[in-house]
Amino acid sequence: MRIHAIGFDGDDTLWHNERHYQDTQAWFAGLLRPWADADGLAERLYATEGRNLRLYGYGVKGFTLSLIETALDVTQGQLPALGIQGILERGKEMLGRPVELLTGVRETLEALSEKYALLLVTKGDLFHQEALIAGAGLGDLFRAVEVVSEKDQATYARVLRRHDIPPEAFLMVGNSLRSDVLPVVALGGWAVHIPYAVTWQHEVAEERPGQGSAWWELETMAALPAKLLEIETTRGAAPG
Amino acid sequence: MRIHAIGFDGDDTLWHNERHYQDTQAWFAGLLRPWADADGLAERLYATEGRNLRLYGYGVKGFTLSLIETALDVTQGQLPALGIQGILERGKEMLGRPVELLTGVRETLEALSEKYALLLVTKGDLFHQEALIAGAGLGDLFRAVEVVSEKDQATYARVLRRHDIPPEAFLMVGNSLRSDVLPVVALGGWAVHIPYAVTWQHEVAEERPGQGSAWWELETMAALPAKLLEIETTRGAAPG
Repeated sequence: MRIHAIGFDGDDTLWHNERHYQDTQAWFAGLLRPWADADGLAERLYATEGRNLRLYGYGVKGFTLSLIETALDVTQGQLPALGIQGILERGKEMLGRPVELLTGVRETLEALSEKYALLLVTKGDLFHQEALIAGAGLGDLFRAVEVVSEKDQATYARVLRRHDIPPEAFLMVGNSLRSDVLPVVALGGWAVHIPYAVTWQHEVAEERPGQGSAWWELETMAALPAKLLEIETTRGAAPG
Repeated sequence: MRIHAIGFDGDDTLWHNERHYQDTQAWFAGLLRPWADADGLAERLYATEGRNLRLYGYGVKGFTLSLIETALDVTQGQLPALGIQGILERGKEMLGRPVELLTGVRETLEALSEKYALLLVTKGDLFHQEALIAGAGLGDLFRAVEVVSEKDQATYARVLRRHDIPPEAFLMVGNSLRSDVLPVVALGGWAVHIPYAVTWQHEVAEERPGQGSAWWELETMAALPAKLLEIETTRGAAPG
């Protein structure tokens, strides 16, 4: 059996995402400079986001609400209304920002769509994710788009079952070891990890089972077609 | 051909939803009483929500952000921080509230699941909708759950194609003529309208094509199994 379907993560795999959050956090630190230093603020925001994750899930709207909550908290209610208004504006700016594809994404997807069924498997806010996909003009290249609330093994099993894809015939491409690589490998599939930034990579470098035999790391999307060729050739030649 | 799959809307069809928004709006009117009368406030909130829909989509998080925006706007920034904090709390309360099923829902779904493939086709925030479904303990009764960002004809066509269901074999059940009934009927399917409140029904009473031949109105979910039997019997007897 060969790979016949490839799944792609969206945020920071196909399009830039994390840097918009980082820009907003830098702006937020400026806004609250009279009340808190940047590091302490980042910690408190992170704690607020963690507490709220159970109710808000992932995405810009929940992030905006957590920014407001943190701002009220840190300033003990002294932030002028203009500051809250500014946070609302920043949130809208993030939601309305045109999608910026990573280098080589369009060409690679176009080339791969000739040979493979492509799926987009992305986590986050349904409405915003669909707006990004539409804005990117990539919709026609994907056989299906799956916006999911969590990317664990059960989610991938459900998505593959739904599309009648055996795990052994599926390869997932994404920037997160935890969400894109390990659950797919655990299911018996394949993966390619394309880190978005060095820090991300270091953060999750502890546990890397299966590397080199069930998943591989690439620097850019442009290197994917050649890697796929290599994987399929090697696996075709080896027993089992 | 007979009906072999039934789709159900979630909010205000399976579980209560709208009344939580209305409760929050009543509370909001109390909060802003020093600055605005209830009617004027409702209008301004509605306008804010309308402007933001393009970026926020449907759901509690976007609603909470629109409440904050409206509050800042109406009070010209004079609302104390405690008020904003109160709005954040209300939003969380709405998201964390245990799901309350409408009368007869569980029994009806259990009975119908013996004979039909049941789909949940619900609009809104993916994360919150999944939490509601899990909280309701209804997951096992549905063959599939589809959380969509808009319920138009194209969406239903996509969902039915994905599950290999011909429109003629599909009946949709929901409280909204616009989202649950008309697009399905336009596609060649069938529908049952169960209004949540009298006002809703009046609001969309102008355009009701196909009523009595492709869709029917019921007062409660409990009346659904008998109606289905009647529909299938009548259609089986009639030519075409």
